[in-house]
Amino acid sequence: MTVLILTCEQDVTADMVVARLNAIGVPVLRLDPADLPGGVALSGEYVHGGFRGHLSAGGRLVSTSGLRSVWVRRPGVPGSRAVRPSAWLSEESAQALYGILRGTGARWMNHPDAAARARHKPWQLRLAQHAGLPVPATLITTFPQAARDFAERFPDLVVKTVSGTHPQDPPEAVPTSRVAPGTDFASVAFGPTLLQRRIAKRADIRLTAVGDRLLAARKPVAADAGPDEVDVRFTRAGTSWEPVDVPVRTAEAVHTYLRRARLAYGAFDFAEDADGIWWFLECNQSGQFGFVEIDTGQPIARTIAAWLARETQGNGRSAEHEGVAGV
Amino acid sequence: MTVLILTCEQDVTADMVVARLNAIGVPVLRLDPADLPGGVALSGEYVHGGFRGHLSAGGRLVSTSGLRSVWVRRPGVPGSRAVRPSAWLSEESAQALYGILRGTGARWMNHPDAAARARHKPWQLRLAQHAGLPVPATLITTFPQAARDFAERFPDLVVKTVSGTHPQDPPEAVPTSRVAPGTDFASVAFGPTLLQRRIAKRADIRLTAVGDRLLAARKPVAADAGPDEVDVRFTRAGTSWEPVDVPVRTAEAVHTYLRRARLAYGAFDFAEDADGIWWFLECNQSGQFGFVEIDTGQPIARTIAAWLARETQGNGRSAEHEGVAGV
Repeated sequence: MTVLILTCEQDVTADMVVARLNAIGVPVLRLDPADLPGGVALSGEYVHGGFRGHLSAGGRLVSTSGLRSVWVRRPGVPGSRAVRPSAWLSEESAQALYGILRGTGARWMNHPDAAARARHKPWQLRLAQHAGLPVPATLITTFPQAARDFAERFPDLVVKTVSGTHPQDPPEAVPTSRVAPGTDFASVAFGPTLLQRRIAKRADIRLTAVGDRLLAARKPVAADAGPDEVDVRFTRAGTSWEPVDVPVRTAEAVHTYLRRARLAYGAFDFAEDADGIWWFLECNQSGQFGFVEIDTGQPIARTIAAWLARETQGNGRSAEHEGVAGV
Repeated sequence: MTVLILTCEQDVTADMVVARLNAIGVPVLRLDPADLPGGVALSGEYVHGGFRGHLSAGGRLVSTSGLRSVWVRRPGVPGSRAVRPSAWLSEESAQALYGILRGTGARWMNHPDAAARARHKPWQLRLAQHAGLPVPATLITTFPQAARDFAERFPDLVVKTVSGTHPQDPPEAVPTSRVAPGTDFASVAFGPTLLQRRIAKRADIRLTAVGDRLLAARKPVAADAGPDEVDVRFTRAGTSWEPVDVPVRTAEAVHTYLRRARLAYGAFDFAEDADGIWWFLECNQSGQFGFVEIDTGQPIARTIAAWLARETQGNGRSAEHEGVAGV
């Protein structure tokens, strides 16, 4: 049974997982959907009520019934490296590839439906609240008056993107920033704006969840950091990430979050306040983990490899996500 | 409790449903996401574990907790009618609007997750097979040799699009066509191609499903039609759509399909062969129904209005789709 990894060629973090899978003798097919059609080929046949599917890349041919798991890492846009790329070809290629893969019994990290839903920041906030995670007071609005009222109740605010895109997408890498006192909010009418009470934090927490396994790392705020240094991705180097234990109640809430979100992988960002409370900021279902593993030595790649290699069912496989495969 | 309709201004089919909702006294908020930000405004507040949301359009302000259902008809791209549109603004606006709506307890026709999944033709074919609907032998491939082998086994073939886009999207309206005998399939390597055994049909069937209600219409093939007239959307006018009863086994299979697909609405296309068998061709989760209603007089708009107006739970509302709303 093969592990299928959908990612781009330059993805060195995936290399860490592939090396691990090779070490334990698990067959891997790694491909970039950008190479379909071309270096990647596929076929799916629906005859007499049955289905047979095949995928080929790099000279290897794999039956879709022989896939044990699919890791959706950093896949390119299907069809985008074709001789004559077009939006139409991308759509056709995406539907063919993911449509066929959806019909297999493979476990997903993460399933495309769960991944698409999990990107909605408003939905994340609501789910975190329900799961029992502390969420800083937040407003998403295009009403200037609503923003002004909110700023009156919560005078110390940060502003961040609604869609929660991350630094892998350069044109949309907008850092979370502190809102200057006396800001006039007239401009929120021109685009939905997310305002959030600033947590006076003493550390950033990155919690990486792989199936049922939680690996948390903590990065103390530099002693001389000012309150405007909000976004850990854009602050100066100095302190580094250290492993940290996950409080029991937080662990329970995170498991609840993942179960309801149907995610097998999630990278949670928390802000730790002076009382030691971990405030939920976001959960990135495709968040990077290489930098944490390098700093902390935590075995994240190995844990992902073990999850992908497992033959039995687990997170990421469910009647819902399999759709008809489990029938 | 209000019915929210997401569609463009030119959508006259939606007018039929709005008129019906007005007639039975159900409040309606109709808006086009293209007008967010601008004519459409929104706000969502997450404070102390709670959530309060508002939507405004056309001078009306509605609380998201007062939404009984959401009809996703023909919505424009969020942000696309802004003063300065951009991909970034569209992404932010889409995440804000749909992210907030996902957190409400409203019933959906259809839920965005179910809708996105239901667009995958390969997934449709597999689900139809499992639900017990007859599916013509089909191949989706980029392997020329697989196409040639298939054509040898099934010499009378049609070719159609994988992504199943329909005439509402002009640049992608590719009719289903008959494959000429002796076709060389070398070009399938340049794009995934869907080949399907041609059903020698005596009629086209359009079955419109609204919740548990099935309304079917039949259009006989013109007596002088040749075997190359495959696609009912592009054939000559002549015969018209007439109401037809749904065979019991087909009805059961369609209900199974909708339940597993988690769709509250679906427009099924079948080809009826000489033995009266209905062969599944596709299910369009946002298929048009106006032309059928006009030809047959079947009360589709009224049935949709009744579904949207219902206060109780039903298709389209489920623990899965509500996500956290049902907690």
